[in-house]
Amino acid sequence: MRWLMILLLASCSNREVEELRTKVLEQSRAHEVACDLADRVGARPAGSEGDRRAVAWALARMQELGLSNVRAEMVKVTRWERGAEHAEIVSPVRQRLFVAGLGQSVAGTVEAEVVRVGSIEELQSLPDERVKGRIVFYDKPMERGPRALESYASAVDVRSAGAAAAAKKGAVASIIRSIGTGSGRFPHTGAQRTRDGIPPIPAAALAIPDAELLARLIAAGEEVRVKLSLESTLHGEAESANVIGELTGREKPDEIVLLGAHLDSWDLGTGAVDDGTGVGAALEIVRLLKAAPPRRTIRVVLFANEEHGLAGAFGYAKTHQAELMKHQAALELDLGTGRALDFRWHAGPTAEPVMHEIGEALEPLGITPAKQDPDAGGADLIPLGPAGVPKVDLLQDSTRYFDVHHTADDTCDKIEPDALAQLTSAATVVTFMLAETPELLERAPRAK
Amino acid sequence: MRWLMILLLASCSNREVEELRTKVLEQSRAHEVACDLADRVGARPAGSEGDRRAVAWALARMQELGLSNVRAEMVKVTRWERGAEHAEIVSPVRQRLFVAGLGQSVAGTVEAEVVRVGSIEELQSLPDERVKGRIVFYDKPMERGPRALESYASAVDVRSAGAAAAAKKGAVASIIRSIGTGSGRFPHTGAQRTRDGIPPIPAAALAIPDAELLARLIAAGEEVRVKLSLESTLHGEAESANVIGELTGREKPDEIVLLGAHLDSWDLGTGAVDDGTGVGAALEIVRLLKAAPPRRTIRVVLFANEEHGLAGAFGYAKTHQAELMKHQAALELDLGTGRALDFRWHAGPTAEPVMHEIGEALEPLGITPAKQDPDAGGADLIPLGPAGVPKVDLLQDSTRYFDVHHTADDTCDKIEPDALAQLTSAATVVTFMLAETPELLERAPRAK
Repeated sequence: MRWLMILLLASCSNREVEELRTKVLEQSRAHEVACDLADRVGARPAGSEGDRRAVAWALARMQELGLSNVRAEMVKVTRWERGAEHAEIVSPVRQRLFVAGLGQSVAGTVEAEVVRVGSIEELQSLPDERVKGRIVFYDKPMERGPRALESYASAVDVRSAGAAAAAKKGAVASIIRSIGTGSGRFPHTGAQRTRDGIPPIPAAALAIPDAELLARLIAAGEEVRVKLSLESTLHGEAESANVIGELTGREKPDEIVLLGAHLDSWDLGTGAVDDGTGVGAALEIVRLLKAAPPRRTIRVVLFANEEHGLAGAFGYAKTHQAELMKHQAALELDLGTGRALDFRWHAGPTAEPVMHEIGEALEPLGITPAKQDPDAGGADLIPLGPAGVPKVDLLQDSTRYFDVHHTADDTCDKIEPDALAQLTSAATVVTFMLAETPELLERAPRAK
Repeated sequence: MRWLMILLLASCSNREVEELRTKVLEQSRAHEVACDLADRVGARPAGSEGDRRAVAWALARMQELGLSNVRAEMVKVTRWERGAEHAEIVSPVRQRLFVAGLGQSVAGTVEAEVVRVGSIEELQSLPDERVKGRIVFYDKPMERGPRALESYASAVDVRSAGAAAAAKKGAVASIIRSIGTGSGRFPHTGAQRTRDGIPPIPAAALAIPDAELLARLIAAGEEVRVKLSLESTLHGEAESANVIGELTGREKPDEIVLLGAHLDSWDLGTGAVDDGTGVGAALEIVRLLKAAPPRRTIRVVLFANEEHGLAGAFGYAKTHQAELMKHQAALELDLGTGRALDFRWHAGPTAEPVMHEIGEALEPLGITPAKQDPDAGGADLIPLGPAGVPKVDLLQDSTRYFDVHHTADDTCDKIEPDALAQLTSAATVVTFMLAETPELLERAPRAK
């Protein structure tokens, strides 16, 4: 029976998929769409004026494409706004440090001796008196390369949880070597979590060259004092929205393949590769599939507020709870401009033949065969885990992505049009085949 | 006779030169010296507190090396200080622009429509009414590559003379696409000249991604308005100094090979590759030659104020006018961290066999044969031209140099230790052989 299904699928779609793959490679304008968002809207942190402009931009784009059920589904977000920021080494030398506050950092000015640690674990092994009254400097490098995402995942804890751990031991501020790659003198900002019951301290990221300067001075035996001043405003609750539009399925319009990206960006750059490229690719996929819509509905969801706590993703899962069992699968594009390297999926075991088939259709794009992986899926798909919505994922070459990720240098010129066209082609194949395959996929065994 | 000299030179020094070349490749610590200057002194624009610290640093370094006649020769400089700077597109979209005032720009705030030109010639071909009251945007890209210096030389006129040309036609400000390479979002500052009789206008450089954004909007037919605000202070006359030390010649101490670099830097970065690497290499060359000093004196001159008008270079030429005929030759290292690619020279024609010999000694380092070139010589050697002092030059691979040149990103981590060791080895060979060759070189035929 399973064997028969593979044959059927193969016989009816091989040529169609091949043509689609080539058409998207040749005709995708994801690059231009992403640059339009970056150039014309620019920075769009959740709840900001730029965010509102982005919602209007996305609605207009979807209307232009003639999608169905185009709408903005409102979600509440917390609006945090960066103010003037300054850091410098005041002793034993005077040097300006390039710095950016981490998301939702409290404001404050401190001057204190720096204590360097390589990890949260190392900090926790220190006696409290070594930390109390000092600035903790987390110096945990990540590795550059096509699969830098793995290194990011293992280094990012100092950004997300480092300040809270430092505050717990009595530190007056927390600074990190930016979680990023390359040598550009840009701090990489990012989200962080405070912990209940621990008064928060100013938390910031240093540009990599500045973190290395600090590390060199400390390695030379110097007692280094740093002054850090962060201004910021927590405006409280604001409105944002998931922007949604659909290409209605020709046979099973109530069954949905979710194709996601996030609309918000950090405030420092113009959000071209995080996540303008994902937005551009998603919109191009439905534009190019419109001539011959697949069996199921493809729903483009441009999530609000991915960067500051997934409010859009949680809002979507709540609003659409009742129809999640009709979600065939979900794919989010949120890894920048690089080529797709690997296809991975997470669903019930009987989904394997379909995923295998999709993997074979991706091979001509140089993508490694399909792999079952419970970690599959972008951040915005996390809230779909408990309902067992099957997830698919295209891991992209992120060699350059983390050079500009969450920095001022995330601008249109960083997009690589050919690589992005390959990604868009791959994502079209995945989306189309999931929308076309006869049966609903078995739900994923457990929540991610 | 010339043939005999070549043979003599070859017979007495081939092995010595070979040993020297290898010794420097293996033992040069130019990288560490340059980083020490960048890390411990940092930015050192002429006349600033950082400049004074740099002079003290250089004097201490030369004393430590045991050089002779270590001294600071005072020169007067004009001190210009950057203040707060801001630029943004205000219409048809709102986008922050990353900007830096050019050297000695006047302060001012203007908001006006932008008129884009590709060159000063194109500006001059426009009717005055197209320029009057507007902001001129010079969009003249340079090319990245090993010999980017040539492209720099042909593009830099819009930086040095663009604002004066725009002011003459009634523009209210001048902005340029940074004269630099790469895609990092850093403006590249640099020197500019005002013209007598034309009231100066604010002059600034945009980061390349921002200049490209502006160009895209204009190419799309938009009328773009920009707001530019520059603060700066012209402090007037201040003191700086050329820092000089010598390795006394063992036979002809009054004959001099000048080995130069410049001590000042721009204010935005820490001056690691402009010109920390030149300073580091020069100091390492005399350290490594000290065990067996050559026939003539090697005089290290760390020039003041190369960046803001060559005050140090002109001061040196004036102070040392009487002994310029005893300058065997001059070499300045001021092209960053890249490998030496080409050896070129400018002297009287009878110097050819010596230069040929030096070129042969450089070949094992992968350097192309010697070439007579009236453009040979760094900027600080220009004032030596009228006296006919022979000049030599090592053109370096500047593929990466112009990515960071005159930006905040000019920091220690950009130095490539192996390439810098090759350069230092090559410069040692050149310096040593010029100091060792029997005769004084024939003077260069005409002033550069």
